[in-house]
Amino acid sequence: MKPVNETRIRVRYAETDQMGVVNSANFFIWMEVGRVELCKACGFNYRDMEQDDGVFLAVAEASCRYRSPARFDDEVIIKTCIEEANTRIVIFHYEMRSAEGERVLATGHTRHVFVNRQMQRTRLPAKYHQMFGV
Amino acid sequence: MKPVNETRIRVRYAETDQMGVVNSANFFIWMEVGRVELCKACGFNYRDMEQDDGVFLAVAEASCRYRSPARFDDEVIIKTCIEEANTRIVIFHYEMRSAEGERVLATGHTRHVFVNRQMQRTRLPAKYHQMFGV
Amino acid sequence: MKPVNETRIRVRYAETDQMGVVNSANFFIWMEVGRVELCKACGFNYRDMEQDDGVFLAVAEASCRYRSPARFDDEVIIKTCIEEANTRIVIFHYEMRSAEGERVLATGHTRHVFVNRQMQRTRLPAKYHQMFGV
Amino acid sequence: MKPVNETRIRVRYAETDQMGVVNSANFFIWMEVGRVELCKACGFNYRDMEQDDGVFLAVAEASCRYRSPARFDDEVIIKTCIEEANTRIVIFHYEMRSAEGERVLATGHTRHVFVNRQMQRTRLPAKYHQMFGV
Repeated sequence: MKPVNETRIRVRYAETDQMGVVNSANFFIWMEVGRVELCKACGFNYRDMEQDDGVFLAVAEASCRYRSPARFDDEVIIKTCIEEANTRIVIFHYEMRSAEGERVLATGHTRHVFVNRQMQRTRLPAKYHQMFGV
Repeated sequence: MKPVNETRIRVRYAETDQMGVVNSANFFIWMEVGRVELCKACGFNYRDMEQDDGVFLAVAEASCRYRSPARFDDEVIIKTCIEEANTRIVIFHYEMRSAEGERVLATGHTRHVFVNRQMQRTRLPAKYHQMFGV
Repeated sequence: MKPVNETRIRVRYAETDQMGVVNSANFFIWMEVGRVELCKACGFNYRDMEQDDGVFLAVAEASCRYRSPARFDDEVIIKTCIEEANTRIVIFHYEMRSAEGERVLATGHTRHVFVNRQMQRTRLPAKYHQMFGV
Repeated sequence: MKPVNETRIRVRYAETDQMGVVNSANFFIWMEVGRVELCKACGFNYRDMEQDDGVFLAVAEASCRYRSPARFDDEVIIKTCIEEANTRIVIFHYEMRSAEGERVLATGHTRHVFVNRQMQRTRLPAKYHQMFGV
């Protein structure tokens, strides 16, 4: 079973740009929100993994396909799942849709490597294996 | 000949996150800076295309591969080129590297569709064809 | 009775900087979130006021006093109230505190003038007077 | 003689919001850019002060008065000076104006306390006294 989670955010005024819709870069910040909440749903805090174990999820790759514009004050549902994970890397997949009307706004994925505080590659500690589905 | 341009930015403190390096979302803002400057190098202002012609470059797809972390106060060279363009879409390619040591930080691309103020698809006006290499 | 409202946000990873705490500029974005939610509590959508009436709340002045650092994943309560309002201007006051322990993170205020789409000063339409406590 | 410096930035698309002008929070990021560049003009890198001496400039207070809207692609001159400084605190003052026409966009100030890595108050090391005008 792939871990999966949904969380909701409300589009902020500052996230729009003069095109009148959400600036494309913000969807990557929403993905970050999605994976932090997925971690919680999996039973741990990403914050603690950083603080207690010195393990960080460095972004190695990120992509997004924009389907429909997101607008100020829209409620957005971020659905996040782990697409692939092993002791070295993890790939998250995201679907962002409008809560009203269930319109898909964007889909995306991010690939991460586990690193230590010095930004050197490391392995996911055993205690997190089950939570990541490794 | 594909239009190509280089521009420079300095990493801002606010662009870092608690990992001590630039947050991954900011590279997409830098790509935006890169393509605005490429437009200028091609002989027109993106601002004017929006204002005078009501033509906008909506982002349909964006991706980035992170090679090496960017740090506060680094000078970053954003190299932007048009990879493909026709009257309907344009694809930009980007390489971001550190000015010091010429270390590649990230590469990426964005695919855009031309839209009008109502976010409906439109065609690139003829006067811009040559500049975009169409 | 001054209108007052509380809303909650969760600190995003991207909102931190390399000091390990939330970058000071983000508190102004949170204030923006606070006043949008206060408008809702007062019975109208700020979005509609912009769209339907062409009335915008331009920021004329903003200030913040930082009391205690906000950290990644903290839940923050934004308490917003209207300190003063007439048909020309409105002043909001904010208190941001940590949900856990009720620690005050920051206090601030913003002063706004009502403007139209052309950024020219205008008066608050009569239908909003009661909601703003004018 | 108060240390003073001018630096230039170009307004980014992502810095605008749907009001069609720069979102008010971004001026605080520009102030941050201004004080980093002022440090350089004074003969040291803020980055090094953090890394080598473990001294950080925590923001205790920030304020901004907005005079005239800043727009996408405007070149903005950030004039920064040290208004007051002692071994415990430093106050910076900023004036942001449009390079074209010399229109003042905003003025602001930030008050900082010197802190160590643990965010505890500390004193400015003697080697920086002259640079800060202490």
